[in-house]
Amino acid sequence: MITLDFTNAMSNGQGERGLAPDDIDSLKDRLKDIHTDIIQRKMSEFYFLDLPHQNTEQISLMADNIRATSGYLLLLGIGGSALGPKAILQALKPFYNLKHSPKIFIYDNVDPSTLTPILTLIDLKRTTVNVITKSGSTVETMASFIILIHALKELHGEQFYKRIIATTDPEKGTLREMAAKFGFRTLPVHPDVVGRYSVLSPVGLLCSSVAGININGLLKGARDMLRRCSEENPWENPAYMTASLMYLLQQKKNKNISVIVPYADRLKAFSEWYCQLWAESLGKNGTGQTPYPSMGTTDQHSQLQLWIEGPRDKVVTFIKVDDYGYDVPILDSENEIKAMSYLKNHTLQQLIKAEQEATELALVKAGIPNIRINVPMIDAYYLGQLFLFFELVTAVTGMLYGINPFDQPAVEEGKNLTYGIMGRKGYENKGLEVMSYRERIQKSKYKI
Amino acid sequence: MITLDFTNAMSNGQGERGLAPDDIDSLKDRLKDIHTDIIQRKMSEFYFLDLPHQNTEQISLMADNIRATSGYLLLLGIGGSALGPKAILQALKPFYNLKHSPKIFIYDNVDPSTLTPILTLIDLKRTTVNVITKSGSTVETMASFIILIHALKELHGEQFYKRIIATTDPEKGTLREMAAKFGFRTLPVHPDVVGRYSVLSPVGLLCSSVAGININGLLKGARDMLRRCSEENPWENPAYMTASLMYLLQQKKNKNISVIVPYADRLKAFSEWYCQLWAESLGKNGTGQTPYPSMGTTDQHSQLQLWIEGPRDKVVTFIKVDDYGYDVPILDSENEIKAMSYLKNHTLQQLIKAEQEATELALVKAGIPNIRINVPMIDAYYLGQLFLFFELVTAVTGMLYGINPFDQPAVEEGKNLTYGIMGRKGYENKGLEVMSYRERIQKSKYKI
Repeated sequence: MITLDFTNAMSNGQGERGLAPDDIDSLKDRLKDIHTDIIQRKMSEFYFLDLPHQNTEQISLMADNIRATSGYLLLLGIGGSALGPKAILQALKPFYNLKHSPKIFIYDNVDPSTLTPILTLIDLKRTTVNVITKSGSTVETMASFIILIHALKELHGEQFYKRIIATTDPEKGTLREMAAKFGFRTLPVHPDVVGRYSVLSPVGLLCSSVAGININGLLKGARDMLRRCSEENPWENPAYMTASLMYLLQQKKNKNISVIVPYADRLKAFSEWYCQLWAESLGKNGTGQTPYPSMGTTDQHSQLQLWIEGPRDKVVTFIKVDDYGYDVPILDSENEIKAMSYLKNHTLQQLIKAEQEATELALVKAGIPNIRINVPMIDAYYLGQLFLFFELVTAVTGMLYGINPFDQPAVEEGKNLTYGIMGRKGYENKGLEVMSYRERIQKSKYKI
Repeated sequence: MITLDFTNAMSNGQGERGLAPDDIDSLKDRLKDIHTDIIQRKMSEFYFLDLPHQNTEQISLMADNIRATSGYLLLLGIGGSALGPKAILQALKPFYNLKHSPKIFIYDNVDPSTLTPILTLIDLKRTTVNVITKSGSTVETMASFIILIHALKELHGEQFYKRIIATTDPEKGTLREMAAKFGFRTLPVHPDVVGRYSVLSPVGLLCSSVAGININGLLKGARDMLRRCSEENPWENPAYMTASLMYLLQQKKNKNISVIVPYADRLKAFSEWYCQLWAESLGKNGTGQTPYPSMGTTDQHSQLQLWIEGPRDKVVTFIKVDDYGYDVPILDSENEIKAMSYLKNHTLQQLIKAEQEATELALVKAGIPNIRINVPMIDAYYLGQLFLFFELVTAVTGMLYGINPFDQPAVEEGKNLTYGIMGRKGYENKGLEVMSYRERIQKSKYKI
């Protein structure tokens, strides 16, 4: 089971800079209410907590079919619809495309200089397209999808629909309507699952299953983590404790930046997944920690200087891996490199763990609060634990702030202005607003 | 030429939240002194400004040789020694390993679960190893190198040295000594080039040349940018202006987080390169903006909510690309998707540019200061401009703060503690310190 060590966020680890047990206890009543809300699923969006119990048969069958019929899987999605799949594939199947088939490409932007090379790398005739948008109208995803529909039609004529799987709302939305009209295969995303909490839904599970990942292991890990986090008392509940620490460190100690630093290359995309989850869930009402993705040991050569000597506005979350699954001995170097002889009889695992411990202690000595999540190993089971853990931490932290951790109202304006530029009916005013802005910018003298 | 638009950082774009021309002018005297220091190369580390004038013949010859003799290039380095190469390869040769040979792998950590798969993916017999560490003793790089030496010896016996190129200090250090002893080929990194400012040295240029990138184009871009930034007056110098804006926005407006958001997938690694440069150069003396890597349009579905409704502590730097080099039409979708018909007769380029403009205006409306770097296209020439530009901005910003932008004193303690754990002679006290910390942590009750 994943464990949490928060010694270095408390005052005995950090002196006056840390929190006191009383600080944690002061949240007990609010956590009790939050716990009741969660248990009773008072907000429908808590449905993400039920995802670990889903039946995966349909997903597995569809994945089997893709593996049998396709050399390539092209996933179209953005935000949570892409970050979750990326996080799983990188953690559990690193270098997947260099070793395995069907090759999986995730196109999560509308950059033409990415799509064009992808279309030359894949054999579109042997490609299944998995388009993912719960609302069914995400502009970036649907723009790419329209392009792919045309390309598939050219190759397959009226049979094009057989190469498409739509992952979307079970009843509503443009993509759902299209699926009904053309006969695409579909996978449902429960209407109460918010994009950034959807990694353990068909959004993340279909491509994982195609890649041969044990998706039931992912879900079992998530279920076990959910059980582990079923106490209302934060001292017994690692997710509630972590949420409390983050909330208190921000509120009482002005730690406005939350650095996450896994000591594992394979968790790089996981960090990015977490950062989206954290930023979009908590950035509301003038508050919200800025999450900062980092990587150990690499970023000791990058960000560590800033953590230690920069502003005192950061809390660091280490993710430490107990067993990397591989190890490489650093053989006796006596003959080659005398100056490096202290490495002999050690292994890479020992070195990376030593660096994590050394960095942790260096932060303690500098008075930077930090916590550590210990992960026994990176496999489907523990990755499932990590996903559920951080989702729960994020939601509970949002509730401690008294904000809704499931909406994202501030992104609407940008969307509406985009509609205005693109000439969408009903957004003419937004179009005019952009025109006038453009004029102002063109006239501006603040250009070099 | 790359241009800068800073309208939205000034008070006419941002009301009271923006800067006034007088704010910029107040720095003129200091910039004059800084400019003199730079012109006179008062700090030897300004040597990075001379890199664009280097002769690349030796690098090109070595790259030709690698291409002729090797199926794989394995680069060992960490920090700037890896981020620079990654930034160039991703920007100019996206999906390189899926299309080209020799395949290039960059191993920049000591994670055994990355090295082991790499060693199964490459044919070590046909691999050239490029080990990069200026000091010649970076522990992570040298640990990997020792492992590779043993592996190469097993394959090639005493001829192993022919498969190694060491990029390091021209005279000093462990790696230089080894090169002399064993006869490795070498490329020099000038002693005054700091790792994070080394991308345009042989550190970044060798693998680029192997990948078929026009390295002289990179250098020409850097030279032209240097000429473009040769005025001491910030109103005539985009690098000095950007440095002034960042400094003033942090000092006067408490913008402690500097978001960089290229609208181009190919600049993702570039963002990470910039973040290392910024963080390690400026995080000193209790100050220094935290750089935050972002990606447009993708992170509109991730961080935008936080920028707009979160704390008012951010300045956003857009990188806008004028020509993506490719475009993809979004064909008439009338028959397929009525709700998306506003996309018809548009292209992906139009959409991604519309989203950049819409997001910029949304930030303006929310009162978030932002600047825009306009890049004509992403090729070697303009990438060279970008590198030199951001290096100069970083150095000058550091000098405005009155700190040394070229050192990183705070990372020493972590290194020393690592030596202590690994049993290096002379670091016994550090080892004892870790032992006592470990004991304290083991006894701690703050664990779940």
